[in-house]
Amino acid sequence: MSTATKGLEGVVAAETEMSFIDGEKGVLEYVGIEIDALARHSTFEETVYLLWNRRLPTRAELDAFTKDLRAHYDLPAPILTLIKTFPKDAQPMHVLRTAVSALALFDNDDPNSVEPDAYRAKGLAIMARAPAIIAAFDRVRSGKDVIAPDKSLSFASNFLYMLNNEKPTKTMERAFDTCMILHADHGLNASTFTGRVIASTLSDIYSVMSGAIGALRGPLHGGANEGVMHTLNEIGSLDRVDAYMKDALANKKKIMGFGHRVYKAYDPRATYLKTLAEQLAKDTGNEQFYKMSKKIEDIMHEAVAAKGIYPNVDFYSATTYHCLGLKLDLFTPMFALSRISGWAGHCIEQLSANRLIRPSADYVGPHGVAYVPIEKR
Amino acid sequence: MSTATKGLEGVVAAETEMSFIDGEKGVLEYVGIEIDALARHSTFEETVYLLWNRRLPTRAELDAFTKDLRAHYDLPAPILTLIKTFPKDAQPMHVLRTAVSALALFDNDDPNSVEPDAYRAKGLAIMARAPAIIAAFDRVRSGKDVIAPDKSLSFASNFLYMLNNEKPTKTMERAFDTCMILHADHGLNASTFTGRVIASTLSDIYSVMSGAIGALRGPLHGGANEGVMHTLNEIGSLDRVDAYMKDALANKKKIMGFGHRVYKAYDPRATYLKTLAEQLAKDTGNEQFYKMSKKIEDIMHEAVAAKGIYPNVDFYSATTYHCLGLKLDLFTPMFALSRISGWAGHCIEQLSANRLIRPSADYVGPHGVAYVPIEKR
Repeated sequence: MSTATKGLEGVVAAETEMSFIDGEKGVLEYVGIEIDALARHSTFEETVYLLWNRRLPTRAELDAFTKDLRAHYDLPAPILTLIKTFPKDAQPMHVLRTAVSALALFDNDDPNSVEPDAYRAKGLAIMARAPAIIAAFDRVRSGKDVIAPDKSLSFASNFLYMLNNEKPTKTMERAFDTCMILHADHGLNASTFTGRVIASTLSDIYSVMSGAIGALRGPLHGGANEGVMHTLNEIGSLDRVDAYMKDALANKKKIMGFGHRVYKAYDPRATYLKTLAEQLAKDTGNEQFYKMSKKIEDIMHEAVAAKGIYPNVDFYSATTYHCLGLKLDLFTPMFALSRISGWAGHCIEQLSANRLIRPSADYVGPHGVAYVPIEKR
Repeated sequence: MSTATKGLEGVVAAETEMSFIDGEKGVLEYVGIEIDALARHSTFEETVYLLWNRRLPTRAELDAFTKDLRAHYDLPAPILTLIKTFPKDAQPMHVLRTAVSALALFDNDDPNSVEPDAYRAKGLAIMARAPAIIAAFDRVRSGKDVIAPDKSLSFASNFLYMLNNEKPTKTMERAFDTCMILHADHGLNASTFTGRVIASTLSDIYSVMSGAIGALRGPLHGGANEGVMHTLNEIGSLDRVDAYMKDALANKKKIMGFGHRVYKAYDPRATYLKTLAEQLAKDTGNEQFYKMSKKIEDIMHEAVAAKGIYPNVDFYSATTYHCLGLKLDLFTPMFALSRISGWAGHCIEQLSANRLIRPSADYVGPHGVAYVPIEKR
């Protein structure tokens, strides 16, 4: 097998009208709009509408979309019961994957429908319910009451409310909403590609979503934001950054949150997130934490920026989530809450011009081997 | 996007030492041994050993492997409890995906380990438990007691025993075991590829398996064997085959169980399966059913064999499963029970020389679109 196809790097596997990435220049656009403009001016709801409809909504369209989303904030009662049976030490990504898979069992329409309208409606409902799954599990494992959603709140605000039983400040809501915008879609990343492969068999959206959540869990994908936090925890304080980084660079240790398969320039999702993280750190008394991240970035910049290794979106989302008071093992699920929208959008695209995704393997074993009966082996 | 890459047809995405397919000649080998020889002489347990170890086992090795497999026939108690909470009208593929996903929650070791030994041990345990999940759900939905596994029985025999509370006849066991052998591995089919993409993020085997089960569910993949049965039910009797087929061919209706992305010759898995199906149909008083299938094959042969369209493995497995008394919606889960072994083997291969599988998308939307505030839209 040529190295060119290993990992399918550079192989075009699908068409999309959703996101465009120029890794060399550090550009990410959603339907032609720069991610930085969306991060600064849009909301997650509006961004999802944009991705799914290929244009920004009018006020009336956005209101209708938001109303529809909020109508699905509640979890079906059996899913809540299910979550309560899960071990308290279970990992939230396993919980999310299992509960989203289980939603299929309680879908009163045909869960297997791949009709565009049904698929989209189910995608919206899964996206609306995923925050409730995570919040409920986190409350249950902490011995706290589950908080019912508040349908007057935005996606971001409602999640933080269900998690903390307290409405977030404007800064907190804005920071979380921005993280949701930044993570919504990103070309054919591994989880999105997983979803498209599953959808290409004409399988159902619950199968797509549970497969994609599984792929996102991996440390080489969504799991990386937890890796960043591990590093920050390991370093522990600002005065230890220098020594840690000196040692890490000397021993060629991988620093989580730097470098990306696609970006050889500054990850355009990290730019505004860095500003937000700084503000949030100030507001929540976590300045030391932001400074630690910034110092790591500066040291890395000097050492490896020339090689095209820059902070990626995971690097400053770790600081942001930490400042929002999120537990470490909720970081990757946060990525999922947002990316569900991208997965749904991609699978709708896949189904609109479907062909089964079925590559070939290069067989490198022996041929013409005889079957020898066991007594003669 | 060129049509050549649509569906990644012909694109080499991984190396494997497990199965070799020559679609033009109609050849399938597992580690160099022709599938027909394995179908006739091997057992499913031995076949899985072969796939995972790249050679046939000695008696002692096979005994140890079998013992290890049987030790995991039991379901963890909470999984059984979970299955009992599922709606009786849930579809078994959704149940299997959800229960396999939930196994991660009750894995007392690290469910996320990608160490080769741990991954393999977990793969073996999932493979051992999947039949118990399906049998338990089928018993529960029918209002029957769940039957505990019998660890003195083979994989095939134990499944039929747990399903029917009756040990199968030798012919039944042999037919089912052969189906398991034939479905164990098949290059980079969509579910196996899904599994490899998920594994390539260094995600856990529960994520891999639930994603792969989801992909297998699709009507363009594992779901096709249920499609065959639907057609047979629709036709209903031998004397109606001619009229049905005449109409279907005239209207270019797709006949399920014929044609394959890879095979342009007779599917080598169908050869021996056809013989077995005939025998089993006789033994179980389903001769009319086999004759109906055979007649469809003959008509199709005359009409489309010249175009490289032949019966595939799904065609005669439908007859076989029907003769074994399996309900229609258990057909695709049967495929999964076997293919779990292939998924595990492929992911062990993937991890042994891993590179994140992350292709590119061809962005076909607009660029440089301004963000217009909502009040100006």
